[in-house]
Amino acid sequence: MVQTPLVTLTTDFGTSDGYVGTMKGVILGIVPDARLVDLSHEVVPQDIRAAAYVLYTAHRFFPSHTVHLVVVDPGVGGARRPIALRTPAGFFVGPDNGVFSYVMACEPLEAAVALTDPRYRLPRVSHTFHGRDVFAPAAAHLAAGVPITDLGPPLADPAIFPLPRLEIASHDLAGEVLHVDRFGNIVTSVAELTWAGDGLVFTPAFEKARGRMRDAERRIVAANTAVEMAGQEIAGVRRTYTEVEPGEMLALVGSSGHLEIAVREGSAAERLGVRPGDKVVLRF
Amino acid sequence: MVQTPLVTLTTDFGTSDGYVGTMKGVILGIVPDARLVDLSHEVVPQDIRAAAYVLYTAHRFFPSHTVHLVVVDPGVGGARRPIALRTPAGFFVGPDNGVFSYVMACEPLEAAVALTDPRYRLPRVSHTFHGRDVFAPAAAHLAAGVPITDLGPPLADPAIFPLPRLEIASHDLAGEVLHVDRFGNIVTSVAELTWAGDGLVFTPAFEKARGRMRDAERRIVAANTAVEMAGQEIAGVRRTYTEVEPGEMLALVGSSGHLEIAVREGSAAERLGVRPGDKVVLRF
Amino acid sequence: MVQTPLVTLTTDFGTSDGYVGTMKGVILGIVPDARLVDLSHEVVPQDIRAAAYVLYTAHRFFPSHTVHLVVVDPGVGGARRPIALRTPAGFFVGPDNGVFSYVMACEPLEAAVALTDPRYRLPRVSHTFHGRDVFAPAAAHLAAGVPITDLGPPLADPAIFPLPRLEIASHDLAGEVLHVDRFGNIVTSVAELTWAGDGLVFTPAFEKARGRMRDAERRIVAANTAVEMAGQEIAGVRRTYTEVEPGEMLALVGSSGHLEIAVREGSAAERLGVRPGDKVVLRF
Repeated sequence: MVQTPLVTLTTDFGTSDGYVGTMKGVILGIVPDARLVDLSHEVVPQDIRAAAYVLYTAHRFFPSHTVHLVVVDPGVGGARRPIALRTPAGFFVGPDNGVFSYVMACEPLEAAVALTDPRYRLPRVSHTFHGRDVFAPAAAHLAAGVPITDLGPPLADPAIFPLPRLEIASHDLAGEVLHVDRFGNIVTSVAELTWAGDGLVFTPAFEKARGRMRDAERRIVAANTAVEMAGQEIAGVRRTYTEVEPGEMLALVGSSGHLEIAVREGSAAERLGVRPGDKVVLRF
Repeated sequence: MVQTPLVTLTTDFGTSDGYVGTMKGVILGIVPDARLVDLSHEVVPQDIRAAAYVLYTAHRFFPSHTVHLVVVDPGVGGARRPIALRTPAGFFVGPDNGVFSYVMACEPLEAAVALTDPRYRLPRVSHTFHGRDVFAPAAAHLAAGVPITDLGPPLADPAIFPLPRLEIASHDLAGEVLHVDRFGNIVTSVAELTWAGDGLVFTPAFEKARGRMRDAERRIVAANTAVEMAGQEIAGVRRTYTEVEPGEMLALVGSSGHLEIAVREGSAAERLGVRPGDKVVLRF
Repeated sequence: MVQTPLVTLTTDFGTSDGYVGTMKGVILGIVPDARLVDLSHEVVPQDIRAAAYVLYTAHRFFPSHTVHLVVVDPGVGGARRPIALRTPAGFFVGPDNGVFSYVMACEPLEAAVALTDPRYRLPRVSHTFHGRDVFAPAAAHLAAGVPITDLGPPLADPAIFPLPRLEIASHDLAGEVLHVDRFGNIVTSVAELTWAGDGLVFTPAFEKARGRMRDAERRIVAANTAVEMAGQEIAGVRRTYTEVEPGEMLALVGSSGHLEIAVREGSAAERLGVRPGDKVVLRF
């Protein structure tokens, strides 16, 4: 069965200038029947970590033949390489600046190449818009079925930025703020938690990666927890927003499996004044 | 003839976080040839009435096999039911919180079900993102042709919020501000008006619903009208912006058939300082 | 071979109100298999020049059967005509208010018609939303293959606004600010420059249009140039952002072939406080 070509786009281009539309024109010129899905174009300019986070949370919900194109590229025109990757979850095209760090932390890398073959670029490559001239054509050709190894030579060491800390002890976890979303929900690096009965357990994948955990580490009774952030303490981890009153703060396991701090029908980020990188501690 | 599956999306998710893209990935994983159209993702967070208004004005211009997915869902994870509806104008999927009130006020309800069948949800349903785990899969399966009655048991009483007031007397109409658009145009609940010669008449559908009107009620000479809002009076209802000079305020029947207050090439909402719910009176 | 119908959309409607979605519903009702690509809906309300610029930079990267729909239309409901154009690069549909000026300055006009035939409009045309009632249907029918000459009578003189100045002398060029993008990059009207060795040359197309140039005019040694804008002087034209340190200002030839002023990983527009129409001089 031939699969519908599918390309997602994540950039810091905004949507007012036509840059994103231009890339889509290039893609549809190469693969006219491609489906194009915007993940985000509102990444803070040059914020590679924010783009990596958006890609990481969204890509797992796409079919595995999807090509994920990311152009957050402060080094455009410089020495950073343009690359394409393949994991079991999809194809990834963008600058080699760490933007695929979270994907590579979660999935085995099946292939990585440098985008050097001129057949898969526009005839004229500008110094300032590789999204249009290099990345969009590569994504389109991958979506059309060109083998990833045709795009250029293998790449041994795609860039990875330092992953956010997550320190696990017998009675507490220390992590940091990963992301603040539109609602003001604060997503932390305390991840891989799921509900089991009245408590939280770490996922088997996490335990496998980390090595066998002691019982006190593996299972956390939700009602006995407290989350500390920005000098405030939030009692207990809840299942859902509606367990507290509108305006109240709560901790919960968010939709991406990360511990989040939220205010029901309000903004936790505004109330606590935190930013990505700030510390969070979960005591139990 | 097989129709192209078509799904619209209306949310308060914004476009910076990848939540909308994630829902699209889920939909395209189920129905790869679906067309996806964004109505709005800039609904003010948790503003159910604003979402209802966007859906109401836009949905009538889509083919009747379209599935309209709405996720403005302050009660996610709580007791509110996830539902799907069908009217002659289309299918509707979202939380049972009143977001389909305007649609149901205008169109007969042909079917209503609660989304309970696990076959039409993602295998794991989170407590905080039913847009991804419940609503997107349901919309995709409907678009793919699954009968609405397969999605769950019939629902007798989908939620409807109180509709905005519209009081009609012999020489005046009283309504309220429904919506303020990007241009600062103020859309009111005074609706169902069309031009006939030099005057406005209520639509036959409106008169039929309301019962036979007296002549003084049915027909309004546009030049003899005055609109009062926020203590200001605007003389006459005009056909189009270009009947006044740039910077002048006017009243007109907008593109959705509602009375609007506008400033040509300016913002009426800014000048008058009004908000949804504020009163408007049309005297004639 | 039948080509996939492809329509781009450029408006000042924003994305919060559902106006754009409504137009897409109309298009997909007429041509269900159309691909729809947003160029921008964040054009400053009623800013015809900004819309013209977005369209101009993006449209060249789309297949030539693409229909480009532009609705920035302060004169809606007044005397301005609705039109459709064809050039070798594509089809163009919108109000006759100059929004296609840059396209027509660069490409020969093959056909121009007024959109008067009621078969290619919605049955009811409002006074305030021709995007939905006139332009979207026309674009859809063009995308479906209706000959442009069926849409209405030929039009002799589509509106063109005065193009931005570009004065060329032996040792300097004077132009103006065309556009400021999301990153704060300042795009100027000094255009048609490409790199050749260590210098810039005007494109053959430009020289052909302008008439034979003297050697001192044709070739500019990049290192010997200085750009003056808002009382500041920027030394030399660079190839790429990474030739200066983060935070430093530079001049470079941007991705659209125009001279741009930028700050690496910062905003030149904010630093210089310039706006479209402000003067720029390139000395050499």
